[in-house]
Amino acid sequence: MSLTRTAATFAPPVMEARRWLEGVVFPEDRPLINVSQAAPVDPPPLAMRQAMAEFAVTEDRAHLYGPVLGNPELRTELAAQIGRHYGANVATDHVAITSGCNQAFAAVITAITDQGDEVILPTPWYFNHKMWLDMAGVNAIDLQTGDDLLPDAEAARALITDKTRAIVLVTPNNPGGVEYPGDLVRAFYDLAREAGIRLILDETYRDFDSRSGPPHDLFGQPGWEDTLVHLYSFSKAYRLTGHRVGAIASGASLLREVEKFLDTVAICPSQIGQFSALWGMQNLSQWVAQERDEILDRRAAIQEHLPRLTDKGWRLLGLGAYFAYFEHPFDIPSDTLARRLVPEAGILLLPGTMFMPDGDPAGKRQVRIAFANLDRSGIAQLFERLQALSF
Amino acid sequence: MSLTRTAATFAPPVMEARRWLEGVVFPEDRPLINVSQAAPVDPPPLAMRQAMAEFAVTEDRAHLYGPVLGNPELRTELAAQIGRHYGANVATDHVAITSGCNQAFAAVITAITDQGDEVILPTPWYFNHKMWLDMAGVNAIDLQTGDDLLPDAEAARALITDKTRAIVLVTPNNPGGVEYPGDLVRAFYDLAREAGIRLILDETYRDFDSRSGPPHDLFGQPGWEDTLVHLYSFSKAYRLTGHRVGAIASGASLLREVEKFLDTVAICPSQIGQFSALWGMQNLSQWVAQERDEILDRRAAIQEHLPRLTDKGWRLLGLGAYFAYFEHPFDIPSDTLARRLVPEAGILLLPGTMFMPDGDPAGKRQVRIAFANLDRSGIAQLFERLQALSF
Repeated sequence: MSLTRTAATFAPPVMEARRWLEGVVFPEDRPLINVSQAAPVDPPPLAMRQAMAEFAVTEDRAHLYGPVLGNPELRTELAAQIGRHYGANVATDHVAITSGCNQAFAAVITAITDQGDEVILPTPWYFNHKMWLDMAGVNAIDLQTGDDLLPDAEAARALITDKTRAIVLVTPNNPGGVEYPGDLVRAFYDLAREAGIRLILDETYRDFDSRSGPPHDLFGQPGWEDTLVHLYSFSKAYRLTGHRVGAIASGASLLREVEKFLDTVAICPSQIGQFSALWGMQNLSQWVAQERDEILDRRAAIQEHLPRLTDKGWRLLGLGAYFAYFEHPFDIPSDTLARRLVPEAGILLLPGTMFMPDGDPAGKRQVRIAFANLDRSGIAQLFERLQALSF
Repeated sequence: MSLTRTAATFAPPVMEARRWLEGVVFPEDRPLINVSQAAPVDPPPLAMRQAMAEFAVTEDRAHLYGPVLGNPELRTELAAQIGRHYGANVATDHVAITSGCNQAFAAVITAITDQGDEVILPTPWYFNHKMWLDMAGVNAIDLQTGDDLLPDAEAARALITDKTRAIVLVTPNNPGGVEYPGDLVRAFYDLAREAGIRLILDETYRDFDSRSGPPHDLFGQPGWEDTLVHLYSFSKAYRLTGHRVGAIASGASLLREVEKFLDTVAICPSQIGQFSALWGMQNLSQWVAQERDEILDRRAAIQEHLPRLTDKGWRLLGLGAYFAYFEHPFDIPSDTLARRLVPEAGILLLPGTMFMPDGDPAGKRQVRIAFANLDRSGIAQLFERLQALSF
């Protein structure tokens, strides 16, 4: 009997990790430190919530279907904002709005692949990318990265076959945290263009990049839209996770294919979500800049506390965006470690095994810490608990 | 070169029909009558919009991720409401919330099929069902219906092979409008159970059924959750189309597979949408009953005006829910007719060709009229314009 599509992939890691909490009681003086999910835990600023409320009460269109590819005013504003961010010209019809960035990825893969095709994915990967490829019957081709977690374009070249349809990069990286240098991204773009395949560039964490200026020059390349598929999320920058708003920037002909998927799986993105994303871009640029400063300060705090762990044999492999990605010093697989950390240290983090193929030896010693929700005092406590571990 | 998954299917019909409007100017004394889309054009009642606004301003969770399968309180309330509606016991873990009912269908198909499997779909079908099967690489097996638009379980039996995974019924039907008799639905359930396949029952228009009492007895069958997959939408009853909230009721083990799809394609349904669906069920039952009365009155108006068309050779094949489904008397294909009706009669409707395989001769003479947004005067005008047609 044949498998089903969902049987070809694994259970959602974040939900699985949440189940590890069931039945565990955390003492009052040592509450759970949850660094498992990359998501804001606070709501958007009051002014935005009030604008949403006004929209819900006074505007009929807050409650009605909109165009499948998103509302024109939001597409136009994002196109302009991408243009400013990357120093390039991007048109409205190069942009589509989706119900979150995961959906953007699923839609694009469905539009460019068939069963049995291949997509190159650096490891450690973002697990929802791998899950969708599994469900689509597309083979994820594992591009190993080294200790710096940076993928190498020449190594990718050697993996390209006549079945390859795309290379996927996530920068700043989830789970690794590393910000890919502009010339690395460009080398992948050139490779993809030469091979006639797509470069899918997931820039969900773009707004928390520590560097100033455009992170890459791809939007400035002539005909960029034939090769580049840029993915974006409004969830992090504007704290809109519960509203599900993401985006794709690429060629209009690809978006016409994407429209078929979105019509069938979503019909249209949430209207209040789209309204909020637009309002955020128009009114919160100052606020987003402060949020970025705060994340960068937390990142600095991790650097400051780092010796406490490196003294114990931990190695920091990547740090940036919302994430610190570590190799731990214990002689136990990381998934076992992660489960034990819940009752034994009051820490919920995700093991490296969730970001790579089964049996990858690197996975056995790696963990992801999504630190964005911890302030300096929380980070100090986290490091104290990790420092005290012995197995 | 292989096709892509989206290339295996057609462009979204509703978006295509909207494009027919481009450049057409409608005289002031004969504005467009748009009966193309099955969607409310008014917002939800003010009290619900105010409750949403309050929720958005005061509740953090309005803006944060929730569980992949939906918020527990909404799942519980819907389970109880299904129980009351169908006179049966349904548990919380038999219910999942999705970002609309299209997504519910896509998730279920992904959870029960693999490439090359078959799903039986009565024609005329709901086009988004056909589109998802195409994209999933699943063969839609066409179950012809007669002039009464009712599918026959024995005819379906003859189509079942070792690749069949499900039969899909939509009742009240889109596009046909017909309400399937309880014993017809039961015969399909018995057939599916006997064959060890799923019966997917899309009851999006359940709240506008003209009959009183439970429309079928499937939820009362022992082990119903192994065979029945019930789909529901909050979009129509509560006018929440722009918020994207639908649901699945079936077995918990199936929902665990569905969770993989939803995590990857949606992460979670919109929180404000879920809040509104719950608030609607708790506060709007009286209002929904009035909405149903209004739709049933519009349906009665269509019956009253019917002789104006039957005199001209039109035949009404189905009437119910939001839809009247007609055979027109003109010797031109229905897609040609539909396009010409825009400039020539100021009417936008969908041709039967959009609801059946290419080349199906029945499609050439059928049209769907989504009448729910027309009041009695609008219905009179529509019939006047249709009566005056000559080709």
